[in-house]
Amino acid sequence: MLKVGVIGCGYWGPNLIRNFTQLSRSDVIRVADLDEVRLEYIKGLYPSVETTMDYRDIINDPEIDIVAVATPVHTHYKFASEALCAKKHVFVEKPITASAIEAENLIDLAEKYQRKLMVGHTFIYTSAVQKMKEIICSGELGDIYYINSQRLNLGLFQQDINVIWDLAPHDISIILYLLDLKPTTISAVGTSHINSAMEDVAVLTMKFSNSLIAFIQTSWLDPDKIRKMTVVGSKKMLVFDDVQPTEKIRIYDKGVEVPKHYDSYAEFHYSYKYGDIIIPKIDGSEPLYVELDHFLDCIINDETPLTDGFDGLYVVQILEAAEESLKNDNRPVTLGQHNSCRYTSLSHTRPQLNSIQI
Amino acid sequence: MLKVGVIGCGYWGPNLIRNFTQLSRSDVIRVADLDEVRLEYIKGLYPSVETTMDYRDIINDPEIDIVAVATPVHTHYKFASEALCAKKHVFVEKPITASAIEAENLIDLAEKYQRKLMVGHTFIYTSAVQKMKEIICSGELGDIYYINSQRLNLGLFQQDINVIWDLAPHDISIILYLLDLKPTTISAVGTSHINSAMEDVAVLTMKFSNSLIAFIQTSWLDPDKIRKMTVVGSKKMLVFDDVQPTEKIRIYDKGVEVPKHYDSYAEFHYSYKYGDIIIPKIDGSEPLYVELDHFLDCIINDETPLTDGFDGLYVVQILEAAEESLKNDNRPVTLGQHNSCRYTSLSHTRPQLNSIQI
Amino acid sequence: MLKVGVIGCGYWGPNLIRNFTQLSRSDVIRVADLDEVRLEYIKGLYPSVETTMDYRDIINDPEIDIVAVATPVHTHYKFASEALCAKKHVFVEKPITASAIEAENLIDLAEKYQRKLMVGHTFIYTSAVQKMKEIICSGELGDIYYINSQRLNLGLFQQDINVIWDLAPHDISIILYLLDLKPTTISAVGTSHINSAMEDVAVLTMKFSNSLIAFIQTSWLDPDKIRKMTVVGSKKMLVFDDVQPTEKIRIYDKGVEVPKHYDSYAEFHYSYKYGDIIIPKIDGSEPLYVELDHFLDCIINDETPLTDGFDGLYVVQILEAAEESLKNDNRPVTLGQHNSCRYTSLSHTRPQLNSIQI
Amino acid sequence: MLKVGVIGCGYWGPNLIRNFTQLSRSDVIRVADLDEVRLEYIKGLYPSVETTMDYRDIINDPEIDIVAVATPVHTHYKFASEALCAKKHVFVEKPITASAIEAENLIDLAEKYQRKLMVGHTFIYTSAVQKMKEIICSGELGDIYYINSQRLNLGLFQQDINVIWDLAPHDISIILYLLDLKPTTISAVGTSHINSAMEDVAVLTMKFSNSLIAFIQTSWLDPDKIRKMTVVGSKKMLVFDDVQPTEKIRIYDKGVEVPKHYDSYAEFHYSYKYGDIIIPKIDGSEPLYVELDHFLDCIINDETPLTDGFDGLYVVQILEAAEESLKNDNRPVTLGQHNSCRYTSLSHTRPQLNSIQI
Repeated sequence: MLKVGVIGCGYWGPNLIRNFTQLSRSDVIRVADLDEVRLEYIKGLYPSVETTMDYRDIINDPEIDIVAVATPVHTHYKFASEALCAKKHVFVEKPITASAIEAENLIDLAEKYQRKLMVGHTFIYTSAVQKMKEIICSGELGDIYYINSQRLNLGLFQQDINVIWDLAPHDISIILYLLDLKPTTISAVGTSHINSAMEDVAVLTMKFSNSLIAFIQTSWLDPDKIRKMTVVGSKKMLVFDDVQPTEKIRIYDKGVEVPKHYDSYAEFHYSYKYGDIIIPKIDGSEPLYVELDHFLDCIINDETPLTDGFDGLYVVQILEAAEESLKNDNRPVTLGQHNSCRYTSLSHTRPQLNSIQI
Repeated sequence: MLKVGVIGCGYWGPNLIRNFTQLSRSDVIRVADLDEVRLEYIKGLYPSVETTMDYRDIINDPEIDIVAVATPVHTHYKFASEALCAKKHVFVEKPITASAIEAENLIDLAEKYQRKLMVGHTFIYTSAVQKMKEIICSGELGDIYYINSQRLNLGLFQQDINVIWDLAPHDISIILYLLDLKPTTISAVGTSHINSAMEDVAVLTMKFSNSLIAFIQTSWLDPDKIRKMTVVGSKKMLVFDDVQPTEKIRIYDKGVEVPKHYDSYAEFHYSYKYGDIIIPKIDGSEPLYVELDHFLDCIINDETPLTDGFDGLYVVQILEAAEESLKNDNRPVTLGQHNSCRYTSLSHTRPQLNSIQI
Repeated sequence: MLKVGVIGCGYWGPNLIRNFTQLSRSDVIRVADLDEVRLEYIKGLYPSVETTMDYRDIINDPEIDIVAVATPVHTHYKFASEALCAKKHVFVEKPITASAIEAENLIDLAEKYQRKLMVGHTFIYTSAVQKMKEIICSGELGDIYYINSQRLNLGLFQQDINVIWDLAPHDISIILYLLDLKPTTISAVGTSHINSAMEDVAVLTMKFSNSLIAFIQTSWLDPDKIRKMTVVGSKKMLVFDDVQPTEKIRIYDKGVEVPKHYDSYAEFHYSYKYGDIIIPKIDGSEPLYVELDHFLDCIINDETPLTDGFDGLYVVQILEAAEESLKNDNRPVTLGQHNSCRYTSLSHTRPQLNSIQI
Repeated sequence: MLKVGVIGCGYWGPNLIRNFTQLSRSDVIRVADLDEVRLEYIKGLYPSVETTMDYRDIINDPEIDIVAVATPVHTHYKFASEALCAKKHVFVEKPITASAIEAENLIDLAEKYQRKLMVGHTFIYTSAVQKMKEIICSGELGDIYYINSQRLNLGLFQQDINVIWDLAPHDISIILYLLDLKPTTISAVGTSHINSAMEDVAVLTMKFSNSLIAFIQTSWLDPDKIRKMTVVGSKKMLVFDDVQPTEKIRIYDKGVEVPKHYDSYAEFHYSYKYGDIIIPKIDGSEPLYVELDHFLDCIINDETPLTDGFDGLYVVQILEAAEESLKNDNRPVTLGQHNSCRYTSLSHTRPQLNSIQI
């Protein structure tokens, strides 16, 4: 039985506690938070869990195998690095750190102490994203032309990070996972209306090699809750609408066909293909359960997590580049030129899809 | 009875012919096109209309009062300028010209010959946009924070202009009309997948003074037909979904309220307002009929069209700036610094809303 | 070239005129109506068509081959029977007559004079219904369990017939076509709110042999326009939503599986199958054009129309039974026991699907 | 602190246990079920709750004030009557009993022993139904013309009751509550496909005095989950779509206006009103919590529950009449003539709306 300590039990922490408790191979033994009210709340739900206001009661406890960090982003590095140095396996919520250099340091510490480091890119563990990955890998969509993602809502303002740092990690991590490619150029633009220090509306653009492009639109100020990603390929198109309760993915047999040969401009005509739409059945497991179960697998079998420190790092590299562009009204930033980039490629071996059981 | 000649009867021209014919104050007497098949098609529908392959048969006919131009964009200037010099009133499809300097010249010619020049920004004449304008002017939405527009579809590739020049004029003209403001900074990014010379997917961003921002997303390669504009204000939010057959506008009584006074950061909490949604009834007149009727009004009563040459010019100025940014991966372009800008302000008197009868 | 005379040019007549005009094998030469305003309207659209207030100018004209009847229901029999006696081929709008005995007489006259008699069950000629028929015939849905149809809207009150006679013929004709079965028992219930003589809201139930059942809900008083038919089979389920502009049909791979063997009640468990949903591509031809083209085919090649007099008769038999039940608050009526029923079976040979080209 | 015993912890029982536990004025002390697995499950969730396989451990415990019954319908009467005789307050899941005579007996027992009897018509306690009641009582809809309800889904087959007894109690109780009227005539029709003894698809019709009519369509065999009730009034129309996560109610300012005076049939024209649609904000409290809190209120303050024994009885009277009609293919049944009807009117004083705090 792996023993878990959780640092931070605000909005998301209780979900970690619940899932680590439900999993048969792990048990939460201690939870730390600075807010006594939250600790009492947890105590009410899980009387056998110990609570503390001092995170060191977790870090220093030799009984604890795993430290899960669900605190504000700027504290991730402190807690995660200390936990790794104390030879704990570490699970950190997204984004993994507040800077790329911090993420690189965590990777190095995990390597040095031979412990597992995993970032909570939870969407990767949803049945819908696994299905999308499977469809894209099968070649059914053809070459990917572009990806367009919207993550809009009213609310959930963060006070220490802007809307891109808050919402875009979901989309960035999904897109990197789907494409197995890193972007070359990043640009971002947005403004703030409620809290002048924090952009609450923004668009992030990632250009990849060839003409592949991805747009991510984020907002804390939208009347409708929209979570929609469109993937346009040369053969078919796919829409992932995460707000739908069951019909989350649609595959459109639609496209444009360019004629092979034509003699003159006047002869040139595109032909459009309009075919069936398929809405594949998607299972409904809780992604956080799948994610934490995978983490336990990796610890027990000494395997690399699907969303390891590198995955966390790449997302933060893109966020940093976006931040720089955001301060310059969309001016493009070449990835890897502006920020710490000891680890820039996606060349490390990703675990295979089939290692995940959903 | 005002006599009309129409140059160009491809995709849109027949709609101009039909509406000028139905209007009781105008009559189409001659149509020009280079394609004999199109001319025969028109002849079949309107046996009394004369057809010609030489546009000069229209320009030079002293009987003709109005010349309507519905040809490819790069030819707009040639036909419109010659028609103005021949002392015709001129109606040109959007975008008014292929460059700002051409649009300025048309404005000057219209002034010199005292003829009316109008651009076919048809959306301005829809009941839905008129309703939005009315709502925004009433102050119901409060200060406008941002506008987000999507115009996506599969198809309708143009061969002489890219997706921004093809689709964004609709959104730009609506946004300028709603805000009565010109943007200060433009950026745009996109790529081409089908025809390497023409971007088929792009995002255009317009920053205005204060923190007002507008995004326009355009695509010829999307599985769903989406035509949606969200206007977020400090008091309420509005969504215009033009794909809906009847429920085109929704007004959300939603928003974020910032506390007036608070002593410390810890005390700071936003409050969210979630109220009713109203779907106002929208009438369904054909906008092109309203638009051309307004044009006849302006000619007969010597008034300025709601979408006059200046309106056409401002849209082209933005398109030109977007084009420059597009070639530089989103690098921001300050409006008026890069292109011909004798006429830059929106300070000329716009006709009032109530001069339009819908 | 077949020469057509049209009696009645109110709401639907102009559509008949337009399509008979567009078809290359037919030409409308004369139109009759009692309303001079309507005749002038037609004259404006089709200057070469003659107009008359005396329908006998059509019936008695030896040049005319086809008479199309689009008048109020209670006059269908008079015009259609006189036209058949004058040896014209006859096309009658739905419902074919106001009583089953009238319909039988028309069938007999068509037989006697060897002329084609066709009823305007236009929905049979839509791509969507043809697709449904194809899917059902293929066995993909398994045994049909039940059909549920809703045809609701605000408006279009008829003054000589109630909502069942007005709207249900569409659903009845589709259901008979899909199932190739006649119901055994009919019941109907409804009330009137606006015009006390005419039910404006009603539900019609048709029971077939086995446990097959079909519900048809009709209303002139509903806030949303709903035109939806659900077909539930033992293997799959299908929804036809005619209000959708493109995605009209959805096939659900869903169902209930009953265990083959179980020893006790306690062991008994259903299992549910939740699979993919498919939205097949549907073509968009105008069904009235397809229908009238088929009528011309039948005349020229001496074939039986898909929606011939028998088809018209069966729909009227069901409407009459429904009317009787309606007056008795849903009391069931056995089809064929209450009304004229010389022709009760569906045993005459229906033309095959492949004789229709859509 | 009121002490609660719960009989039955299958599908719904755990929700009762959870809510009685959360309420500050009640506590669950013992739970009975015949299934040891279920009892262990409850023990796992609530270690302090006693479990038993003998329901008499609850009935005979003098400490227990309230008995809640969530067992199969045919056992409701046995458990509820014994509990009342043991002077407990009794909460019974819907439908209150398997026959009207049983329900009458329960009413008599509650009166005799001066204990509260309440039935779990939970929908009455939803914010949406409270909002509908408020709108209808305000007169905003005008006179109610008809109500159309659909409750369709795939699954949840019951083995001791058919689809009408399973699903229609929700709609019947809502409709009685909204209208404060009992129907005069009931008819029902349906068939069974999976289990030949139990109808799985059915339509129930209730006629009221005047021309008010209500349809309830129920199915265990539908591809989409539909829970929709349309209320059409003489002034406005309302749709309650319970599947929508937030936009549950829409009020349509639509209708038909009949001209006051007209001289001849030919002059007669309806006019249609098409106005705005309003989607009022609805709060999201858990209805079962509100319901049980109201039950505790009634016990403590000696008041009549909104959904008391009479409410339970009226629903069962309608279900019994429907059952009789169902066996006779929709033959209408006059309410009160076929079944036990000592209590037939709705004349007892209903608690006022404002006694409920949602």
